[in-house]
Amino acid sequence: MTLINADDIDDIALGATVLGTGGGGDPHVGKLVAQQAIEYHGPVELISPDTLDDDAFVVPTAQMGAPTVAVEKVPGGGEPAASLSRVERECNRTADATMPIECGGINSTFPFAVAAEKGIPLVDADGMGRAFPELQHETFNIYGVDGTPAAVSDERGNTCLLDTTTNEQLEWLARGITVRMGGVGYIADYPMTGQEVKETAIPETMSLAAEIGAAVRDAGENVVSAISEVTSDSIYGETVSLFEGKIVDVKRRNERGFVLGHVELEGFGPDDGSTMEIEFQNENLGATIDGEYVATVPDLITVMDHESGDPIPTERLHYGARTRVLGIPTPPIMRSDAALDVWGPRTFGLETDYTPMTH
Amino acid sequence: MTLINADDIDDIALGATVLGTGGGGDPHVGKLVAQQAIEYHGPVELISPDTLDDDAFVVPTAQMGAPTVAVEKVPGGGEPAASLSRVERECNRTADATMPIECGGINSTFPFAVAAEKGIPLVDADGMGRAFPELQHETFNIYGVDGTPAAVSDERGNTCLLDTTTNEQLEWLARGITVRMGGVGYIADYPMTGQEVKETAIPETMSLAAEIGAAVRDAGENVVSAISEVTSDSIYGETVSLFEGKIVDVKRRNERGFVLGHVELEGFGPDDGSTMEIEFQNENLGATIDGEYVATVPDLITVMDHESGDPIPTERLHYGARTRVLGIPTPPIMRSDAALDVWGPRTFGLETDYTPMTH
Repeated sequence: MTLINADDIDDIALGATVLGTGGGGDPHVGKLVAQQAIEYHGPVELISPDTLDDDAFVVPTAQMGAPTVAVEKVPGGGEPAASLSRVERECNRTADATMPIECGGINSTFPFAVAAEKGIPLVDADGMGRAFPELQHETFNIYGVDGTPAAVSDERGNTCLLDTTTNEQLEWLARGITVRMGGVGYIADYPMTGQEVKETAIPETMSLAAEIGAAVRDAGENVVSAISEVTSDSIYGETVSLFEGKIVDVKRRNERGFVLGHVELEGFGPDDGSTMEIEFQNENLGATIDGEYVATVPDLITVMDHESGDPIPTERLHYGARTRVLGIPTPPIMRSDAALDVWGPRTFGLETDYTPMTH
Repeated sequence: MTLINADDIDDIALGATVLGTGGGGDPHVGKLVAQQAIEYHGPVELISPDTLDDDAFVVPTAQMGAPTVAVEKVPGGGEPAASLSRVERECNRTADATMPIECGGINSTFPFAVAAEKGIPLVDADGMGRAFPELQHETFNIYGVDGTPAAVSDERGNTCLLDTTTNEQLEWLARGITVRMGGVGYIADYPMTGQEVKETAIPETMSLAAEIGAAVRDAGENVVSAISEVTSDSIYGETVSLFEGKIVDVKRRNERGFVLGHVELEGFGPDDGSTMEIEFQNENLGATIDGEYVATVPDLITVMDHESGDPIPTERLHYGARTRVLGIPTPPIMRSDAALDVWGPRTFGLETDYTPMTH
């Protein structure tokens, strides 16, 4: 058990944004919300999934919606915890802990605000091992947990409690609700037992994010080796530089409650003369160099500022930015046949099968 | 108390379609669903609101969505009652009765299916006194009842339970959910006490529908006087013929979960040489003759087949149909300032104030 103070959130937010592959919301927003809650309610216990009782009651929480909207519609007050409270009331049971559903800018830190407000621990794990755009992309779904009862709440005090027959229906209905809520809502879903957490979550990703954050903080141009040192010692593996280039085109549109788009980079330095293209749906999905895929989901593709080493979320990509694109391989639990059926490249419309990242 | 058998549903459906002013869904669909449920579970008790205990628990039910979709997506099995059961479970109380929220093709008969399946009476009243397109158009809202907890269910077994801070938010979120459910869902909303029913509902509209249906059934071209004989003896007043004409243009589009449109009629007989235009949003909203309004919401505008006297819902209006357009005035409870604030002509975008129907 580790106590997470407001200061610790900085590294977690930074590291989770690297793991977030451009998605999961703006890290700054999530950080402020979590830090304010911790300063108000006190530090949050970060507990290893191994320490959970098998019959513990864990309710994951997240912000849901389009990251472009989340930047302008910042949560405050009791909103973050409202959906968890609604699920508690429905299940007639108090949550023993909350847990992130993904590693990403806002969704790794936002649940700390829920934990602080509710006075419960946060499980050091998540349901994606990176960020993905939809609720059925959670390993909880892939490995058999029921997503409902789930609740979506908004800043007006409205809540919707969902019971669905499939987890895809949960995503479909909850997404529609977040669109009506103004593009962003707060969800509590996949309420589960401690045993289910141990069987389905990607373990220790919050402490991994903290270590990556600490490594990136002062790395500057040495960011690849600094991150690789951490990931090589984890279930993920060696981090590599996929491309160095300047952004020459960004196309971005809000559609179906997502931010969809495409970015083009003109290489410099070792990649002079080459072109990288990256497709994204909230998160980076696939990267090609001169038309050939070099990395796709579920492997991690992260665009970073070339000089500062800061990760750039997809909603902040802009013309002229000089960047470095990192690739981080995926641990085996994220590359099983069951997992690739749910989040392999073709499920996002990319016309390629998954092959492990090449460099 | 009256026992409603499957055969009685024919007249109620027909009469409610006259009161439905073109909306409230296809009468044939609602009729079949109610009749099947009554044949299976037995007749339904129709009770006067006056006979309700003040602390009785009444949960209105309805189909919600676009009538054009409802025609193709017919409910069956336990779907109609699922949302009511969800509200019962949330309130930890069994409903003493259900009630229609509006007079209209499907929504006057559909709740009989719920009543039959749940084995509870149906209150002889409704929340609109006609049909209107949105949930805040219920007199329950106008006169201060909270719309939530409300539930929306679909044919896949999904339910969403809503708690909202305003009834407009209930409409907005529930509408979004029905769109995601494929254009049609089943709602239970405005759970209320017997006293609230007596204070806010339009009374005796189901028995009025039954009488209008019986009058229309064999009236043919005498339909106006047959209906007027019934309405003149009710809180509504004298029914008049507004126009006789042939439909020469229909414009119709699905938008925001509604069917919006506009129909143009070329007069014949007494109206030879004149043109009527009718605007609708699920229901008929306003009718002009040669550019001058002759009737608007909340007064009732009903298009009927000129020969058979059958009322024609907006989704069945078509080029070439020879029609008679009826106007039925509104009882005082539907014309209060509070009511006109919610469903007056300008709330639907018509550029006119409400003036009682002219002939």
